[in-house]
Amino acid sequence: MSAFPDIPTVQYEGPESDNPLAFRWYNPDEMVEGKSMKDHFRFSIVYWHTFRGTGADPFGPGTAVRPWDDGSESVQNAQNRARVAFELFEKLQAPYYAFHDRDVAPEGSSLAETNANFDAVADVLAEEQKRSGVKLLWGTANMFSNPRFMHGAATTCNADVFAYAAAQVKKAMEVTHRLGGENYVFWGGREGYQNLYNTDMKRELDHLAQFFHMAVDYAKQIGFTGQFLIEPKPKEPTKHQYDSDAAACLNFLRAYDLTDHFKLNLETNHATLAGHTMMHEIDYAGHQGALGSIDANTGDMLLGWDTDQFGTDYYLTTQMMYYILKHGGLGSGGVNFDAKVRRESFEPIDLFYAHIGSMDAYAKGLKIAAAIRADNALESFIEKRYSSWDSGIGAKIESGSVGFADLEAYMLEKGEAEANISGRQELLENVVNKYIDRV
Amino acid sequence: MSAFPDIPTVQYEGPESDNPLAFRWYNPDEMVEGKSMKDHFRFSIVYWHTFRGTGADPFGPGTAVRPWDDGSESVQNAQNRARVAFELFEKLQAPYYAFHDRDVAPEGSSLAETNANFDAVADVLAEEQKRSGVKLLWGTANMFSNPRFMHGAATTCNADVFAYAAAQVKKAMEVTHRLGGENYVFWGGREGYQNLYNTDMKRELDHLAQFFHMAVDYAKQIGFTGQFLIEPKPKEPTKHQYDSDAAACLNFLRAYDLTDHFKLNLETNHATLAGHTMMHEIDYAGHQGALGSIDANTGDMLLGWDTDQFGTDYYLTTQMMYYILKHGGLGSGGVNFDAKVRRESFEPIDLFYAHIGSMDAYAKGLKIAAAIRADNALESFIEKRYSSWDSGIGAKIESGSVGFADLEAYMLEKGEAEANISGRQELLENVVNKYIDRV
Amino acid sequence: MSAFPDIPTVQYEGPESDNPLAFRWYNPDEMVEGKSMKDHFRFSIVYWHTFRGTGADPFGPGTAVRPWDDGSESVQNAQNRARVAFELFEKLQAPYYAFHDRDVAPEGSSLAETNANFDAVADVLAEEQKRSGVKLLWGTANMFSNPRFMHGAATTCNADVFAYAAAQVKKAMEVTHRLGGENYVFWGGREGYQNLYNTDMKRELDHLAQFFHMAVDYAKQIGFTGQFLIEPKPKEPTKHQYDSDAAACLNFLRAYDLTDHFKLNLETNHATLAGHTMMHEIDYAGHQGALGSIDANTGDMLLGWDTDQFGTDYYLTTQMMYYILKHGGLGSGGVNFDAKVRRESFEPIDLFYAHIGSMDAYAKGLKIAAAIRADNALESFIEKRYSSWDSGIGAKIESGSVGFADLEAYMLEKGEAEANISGRQELLENVVNKYIDRV
Amino acid sequence: MSAFPDIPTVQYEGPESDNPLAFRWYNPDEMVEGKSMKDHFRFSIVYWHTFRGTGADPFGPGTAVRPWDDGSESVQNAQNRARVAFELFEKLQAPYYAFHDRDVAPEGSSLAETNANFDAVADVLAEEQKRSGVKLLWGTANMFSNPRFMHGAATTCNADVFAYAAAQVKKAMEVTHRLGGENYVFWGGREGYQNLYNTDMKRELDHLAQFFHMAVDYAKQIGFTGQFLIEPKPKEPTKHQYDSDAAACLNFLRAYDLTDHFKLNLETNHATLAGHTMMHEIDYAGHQGALGSIDANTGDMLLGWDTDQFGTDYYLTTQMMYYILKHGGLGSGGVNFDAKVRRESFEPIDLFYAHIGSMDAYAKGLKIAAAIRADNALESFIEKRYSSWDSGIGAKIESGSVGFADLEAYMLEKGEAEANISGRQELLENVVNKYIDRV
Repeated sequence: MSAFPDIPTVQYEGPESDNPLAFRWYNPDEMVEGKSMKDHFRFSIVYWHTFRGTGADPFGPGTAVRPWDDGSESVQNAQNRARVAFELFEKLQAPYYAFHDRDVAPEGSSLAETNANFDAVADVLAEEQKRSGVKLLWGTANMFSNPRFMHGAATTCNADVFAYAAAQVKKAMEVTHRLGGENYVFWGGREGYQNLYNTDMKRELDHLAQFFHMAVDYAKQIGFTGQFLIEPKPKEPTKHQYDSDAAACLNFLRAYDLTDHFKLNLETNHATLAGHTMMHEIDYAGHQGALGSIDANTGDMLLGWDTDQFGTDYYLTTQMMYYILKHGGLGSGGVNFDAKVRRESFEPIDLFYAHIGSMDAYAKGLKIAAAIRADNALESFIEKRYSSWDSGIGAKIESGSVGFADLEAYMLEKGEAEANISGRQELLENVVNKYIDRV
Repeated sequence: MSAFPDIPTVQYEGPESDNPLAFRWYNPDEMVEGKSMKDHFRFSIVYWHTFRGTGADPFGPGTAVRPWDDGSESVQNAQNRARVAFELFEKLQAPYYAFHDRDVAPEGSSLAETNANFDAVADVLAEEQKRSGVKLLWGTANMFSNPRFMHGAATTCNADVFAYAAAQVKKAMEVTHRLGGENYVFWGGREGYQNLYNTDMKRELDHLAQFFHMAVDYAKQIGFTGQFLIEPKPKEPTKHQYDSDAAACLNFLRAYDLTDHFKLNLETNHATLAGHTMMHEIDYAGHQGALGSIDANTGDMLLGWDTDQFGTDYYLTTQMMYYILKHGGLGSGGVNFDAKVRRESFEPIDLFYAHIGSMDAYAKGLKIAAAIRADNALESFIEKRYSSWDSGIGAKIESGSVGFADLEAYMLEKGEAEANISGRQELLENVVNKYIDRV
Repeated sequence: MSAFPDIPTVQYEGPESDNPLAFRWYNPDEMVEGKSMKDHFRFSIVYWHTFRGTGADPFGPGTAVRPWDDGSESVQNAQNRARVAFELFEKLQAPYYAFHDRDVAPEGSSLAETNANFDAVADVLAEEQKRSGVKLLWGTANMFSNPRFMHGAATTCNADVFAYAAAQVKKAMEVTHRLGGENYVFWGGREGYQNLYNTDMKRELDHLAQFFHMAVDYAKQIGFTGQFLIEPKPKEPTKHQYDSDAAACLNFLRAYDLTDHFKLNLETNHATLAGHTMMHEIDYAGHQGALGSIDANTGDMLLGWDTDQFGTDYYLTTQMMYYILKHGGLGSGGVNFDAKVRRESFEPIDLFYAHIGSMDAYAKGLKIAAAIRADNALESFIEKRYSSWDSGIGAKIESGSVGFADLEAYMLEKGEAEANISGRQELLENVVNKYIDRV
Repeated sequence: MSAFPDIPTVQYEGPESDNPLAFRWYNPDEMVEGKSMKDHFRFSIVYWHTFRGTGADPFGPGTAVRPWDDGSESVQNAQNRARVAFELFEKLQAPYYAFHDRDVAPEGSSLAETNANFDAVADVLAEEQKRSGVKLLWGTANMFSNPRFMHGAATTCNADVFAYAAAQVKKAMEVTHRLGGENYVFWGGREGYQNLYNTDMKRELDHLAQFFHMAVDYAKQIGFTGQFLIEPKPKEPTKHQYDSDAAACLNFLRAYDLTDHFKLNLETNHATLAGHTMMHEIDYAGHQGALGSIDANTGDMLLGWDTDQFGTDYYLTTQMMYYILKHGGLGSGGVNFDAKVRRESFEPIDLFYAHIGSMDAYAKGLKIAAAIRADNALESFIEKRYSSWDSGIGAKIESGSVGFADLEAYMLEKGEAEANISGRQELLENVVNKYIDRV
């Protein structure tokens, strides 16, 4: 029985379509830079927001109308919900999905029962994956909602809670492995602090590293070869999240010898909360070989919390796709819609409008980015701008053949540096607009 | 001839004093945790704000009345100004000062002339240091004001400008060395970007690392053994500064194999612009062995730019001194007043009020921090809070003797983790207030 | 049966006390500026955070342990909770409390049943007020939690919801009146918008004004003479709240001829989210005759959402009390603790620590403010600073006897204005520290 | 002699043009909603940024290369600069310009001399206006740069400075009047405070109102019938600017009986610094009859200061033009480019690229907005969304014929409100994208 009987599989109809349930830009098989759109994006739909989000906020309970959900915490409801989820994945032509352990299956009265619940729902997920061809982009464990995790999971002050988290991740990794998940993600949840007065930051970070090393060991043990990802976020729910931004994550990975095993899952709204543009985070991670996957959403730049809105801004999607293309794509990662419909958009159909609009925005962003790249419209400017490094004193510096004394001698003789050239920011912004116009 | 004839050397008169030109808390020889206040703080006064600051802002030119300064860019004016500076340093009982090359001496029409100017003023600085006993905490090079540095210095797109910067730092290191400077600082100036569209971030960061390696090499060459410091700041003047925060700096140092040679010069206002508390940055750098020195100021938390105000908030100074004590002090670093009087506080005497008030605030902060430590008022809470890690499963985890499978077995048997205990943030805030009351 | 058998009535023990369950500064009968502390503050405890707060946040459910609460939505549980609340009010020596209709009593299956539930609990509240002497500072209606209010209450696009809200406020006003409430508050809840694309702002504001006029009319009808208050907040839960800040509220009240009937209930955390200091909002409202009451809490200046923490910062409480004293006190308003314990502070005793610490911080702030005022320490500076307005050209301007032409003639003759004097911000900050030291 | 010999008058060439010195969207005579683009925008170029901006920032002096400017403060240089300005205005086909008194002419050694300088340059402006047909959108007085204004102008603590400001505005109004200026603007400059500790906010606001009343009187006296405008900005250069946002301005105007004489000059970057979208400020001012003119620029949403960048974002320009159209256009106001090229864009040609790109972005924004309006694409949704107010209980409420008691009766009978409908934010965002695609 269909949960969305009136909604057909969403089809590409092209920019001229007025059908709000059609793609105007996302055309899965359309080739861009020699790869299909489908393969560029590897779009993924998240279980938590889309199937467990209720619209609750700190000022009121949920509003979402979800006729297929009986509201109970039964395994059967969870299994039924899973089937509905796959109907949505298919109708949206999304090749991937992602989940937390506790999204897909209810907690039981003991860890053993919880694990059994998880397995029971995983059976349905496996079945549905097989039936539909939809695949698991990544799994993760929710180690922040249950009150036991109030002080963190791997960074808790309570050693038992660390042990619990370890057991939970072990299971989540197993299920992810079983379902062919291509990555396994750690979002920091409550790994951080509310107040330094009561916190031993060093000890907590040591524990966090130990946790990750255990995960690496266990993956080897069970033959899970998916990519591990950690996800930067600067604040919320804790005042300070340890994985603040890409730089903080990479510093941690380097400090604890984890760079070989982890890449980053970058989220737009987290980037801006940390004071960075998303393109910065992508480029920064990219040139350090740590670009893993994308949590695709957007914040409201005038609000100071994680709004997890669906991104529809062509500038944002263009910039993201430009730097993703520059760094050779997302590998085993994907563009994962970690986004939720507004509390006031409470009908099932809003889930479709939201995903369609954002998929379209990424598709158009990809085409704009590819057009810019095809013309070398930005790169040629950059190449010329840095051309003083390609020969002469610049080349000598890059080759490491000169030091301070040589450079002083060079400059004392020359007297003054060659004149600068304009950075042309305004012109380049116009250039980007031109490509937006033309796609 | 005195520039401040009506201002005596500022003396400690104790908390009951109403003399605005006396210290109420800063008592240089008073012992705290077995060390004199003087040695705890190693207070330093900055040349740039205090002797070159004019009160100019983007909406108007300077307002400062500085009768000793003839307003010219002559070497003689610079030399005269230097003598006035030392009068102020002495009257404030500041044992240290810090400068940029271009603060103390004017640029000439060529690099050679500029260097000669610098030497001519350095002669006076050397003489004044000797006469007064005031020492150089650190030197640095201003590689951001001159238009040649519009695109950065070590990270410029113009190789010649890199060469110029190298020559400039070479000289600044030499002068710092000659004057016995205990550290050499790199603040990122325009090392960052205004817009990614025209920027090759990777190439720029590679150049920055090369620049630092050259500096390390040159220090060896001339026998300069002072500590190198880099200074986190997230934005301003560029949209994105590469040295965003402590984490970004440390990630960079690790990535380019520079950790043995560099520590951090942390600034309060930069920390908060990056979204961190200053105590966070101190603790974070401290537990990674990178706590070098402090640029002591404060921002206005409702303003989004670097206001470089003098810090007088006891909570701030208590928190800073608490974590500095925790990490064993500042070593060769110091508490350096990188702060400026407001544009409306344009009289010379305001320079005294400003420094006195902030020195007092740090002194009281130190005493409060020491009192908290003497009673173990926070540490005992923390120790107890993490005590589950000192034995049992916690100790096993820390020792590395267990993995995911062991922890799952442990938890499956146990069923649920031990109960959490309250984080008691509110109580601890009251505790801190109690110590503020009692000092 | 006591809910807090181990907690005695909190007593004033003075600054030297180490008893975390004693007041160190709040001494109800101590006279300050001729008025008891009790009468200065009129401390009020909020029902919602303290008795209905669970510690839930967007990332996890509640953590609070509240043994007296059976977790049900029964009237009896609500009545029992009310008795516990009064035990806490009394033990904290709080003379006032405040509630939303839906905090104290559960919604029923119809408005009629809901109203009956409300009355049944109000009976207990009345009884407890009489027994204890604790009074109602203000009542209000929760018109934002129930999903029917998703688009707002008075500013909803759904006329029926406006009608529902009207019915609800009518009842809440009646109960407030019955219980002797000294004010009635409107906090804007969801009165704002998420997105202008779907919003008719003008029509919504017209409706809001109409709603308030109806409230004024109904108060007359039932003889309720308490003060109406509206509460500024710039964002959250909506992207834009119509009552953004004091200025927006006052502009609205003036535009719709409501200034005679409404004052402002200012909240610290809302002020800072709007980019203002709390002392600004108090002074701004005060000099327009609109200072009504205070929601006493604090935000975290590095976080962009309403954290509703208990304020313990002496600078904040000094500034608040200074401007409250300046404007003659709070009249029928009070210092209402619209603050919640952290999610990790989940034990009942944390409620005591939190209130005690903040009451103490306000008490010390009051004493510091009064000491500054006793010495005219800031006012005398201000008077002198503006003294040019007390005679000569300044007095002529203030009297309205001169215009542009006169002033031009005056200045053409004079050539240049009299010199400015330093604003002395740094000195004044030191002065405030001196008073903090001495109280 | 031309200052821009290689730059022709910029012509409309259409979207397919690759000429960076052509308009791709701004087609002055193209009709949109029955009015030419030229008349919709009334584009204006600012004298200060474009002809007096140097690229200086707090970290370095100017970089701009302006071959026509001899760098002196002579009247002749000012007159020559004025002729260059008109060459640029004409080549950009800008029908308007705007200035501060001190932008166009240098200060002399006395007010009399300053006024004479101003007149001497105004002669050239008049001549150039006549020659070119370019008109003056508005004049204003710079009352914030000169150190005499350090404590404000109309809100200074120094009565003489108020008198000076009055004399200055008198002259600026006269010159504006002489040059046919269509508006006169007051931007708050330093009208605000750095610190409440030394400030009498009430007295300052009273003075500000008096100043504005004097201006109104003087306008009558000289027959100046242009529109007075005040300009919201929340902070910078002062910590708190009195004219914080549209609401604060309007509250002030209402409080001091100035609404008949003043409208608002809204600036994009100021709106976002105040936490509002620009479309909010336009709609808010518009429905209160206070939409006067637009300072067209944009900020960087990740930076906390006024960057005054040229706006090129189609979402921004679409939203602005949509609400400007909704409120019937800008009347005597215009779209005034209060924007500056980046410090790194230091060549004269960058001034052209910058204006062209932004004019194009507004032109495309206008076309998108008009297309949305032509289809009623948003309005029809809004009308339907609020249709419950057009009849039944909604109509009764709007007509004022019912009160709380009636509404309670209505709701008690009805039991529950009619169901809400989805706000459809995501769908509407997709709709806007569709119009961006199609123009």
